Amino acid sequence: MEYRAIAPEKAYTIFNGGGILLVCTRSPESRYNLAPIAWTCPLDYEPVTQLLFVCDPSHATFHNIEATGTFIAALPTFRQKELVLKTGEVSGKNIDKFERFGIPSRRGEVVDALVPEGVAGWAECEVSQIYRPGEVAIVCGTVKAAFAVPEAWKLVLHHVERDLFYRPGESV
Amino acid sequence: MEYRAIAPEKAYTIFNGGGILLVCTRSPESRYNLAPIAWTCPLDYEPVTQLLFVCDPSHATFHNIEATGTFIAALPTFRQKELVLKTGEVSGKNIDKFERFGIPSRRGEVVDALVPEGVAGWAECEVSQIYRPGEVAIVCGTVKAAFAVPEAWKLVLHHVERDLFYRPGESV
Repeated sequence: MEYRAIAPEKAYTIFNGGGILLVCTRSPESRYNLAPIAWTCPLDYEPVTQLLFVCDPSHATFHNIEATGTFIAALPTFRQKELVLKTGEVSGKNIDKFERFGIPSRRGEVVDALVPEGVAGWAECEVSQIYRPGEVAIVCGTVKAAFAVPEAWKLVLHHVERDLFYRPGESV
Repeated sequence: MEYRAIAPEKAYTIFNGGGILLVCTRSPESRYNLAPIAWTCPLDYEPVTQLLFVCDPSHATFHNIEATGTFIAALPTFRQKELVLKTGEVSGKNIDKFERFGIPSRRGEVVDALVPEGVAGWAECEVSQIYRPGEVAIVCGTVKAAFAVPEAWKLVLHHVERDLFYRPGESV
């Protein structure tokens, strides 16, 4: 194998493999929001699944989560790359992205947020911990309910960097 | 899309998409170790990349990291599934996995740990934060040096559950 050095400020690009989330929230004023989050992983599975994701605490998603203590983590499919890109380009602080982009959605079963249609699955979560290392936030949530299509792993959308995304390949 | 409910204790399986790590460490007694870690993501990229991974604090990897304050996060390729499985089946507390399994390796450039040959890339890290929500540990590390093959994202190994792994597919 021929390795090349990667600048430490770019090293994240090789660890970017997780399935992208659309984190769906509701503001204290009842504006629904959704935003793509690429940095996420499970945190535990006993007695129930917990997830974590990393976000910018200046964004509407974080403010909404602090206010409501809940969120829905939806997994867009590789066919929803455009939805991921456009919902990441504007802030939910001032606009309703569901209205702006005409995104069909359904209400969560136990969390008051909107899940976009066409996702591979979603988990409805209560916030359990928020950590603030440096300039970012690590939001940890306990899954209260989850739904997915069979073999959802075949549909998830992975991000590498900028507009380079990939879909899952074969099982090995 | 036809969704099925997933038990909260199994919901983690649909969020398991990140590239698996082999976390490489050294014990205070200078025994080198490596262990597969599936739950990981970037944490920041300015001014340099930080990574996080979730681990069991009772494992040798965590003890080694607490003792040395360093680790190397290596990305095995989809051809290294067997290496991932076998290094996950035994504890590095009592045996030297590199010797036991005859794993060819190289020393890190700045961190004293061994990187197995054939990985897609690796990052040599200093621990920046350790959080302990409940029964698990979130280890955060700052990248001091990183190396990878070109287009490393095409080679990483993803885990779904049990022995179901997949390789990356096409870019979208």
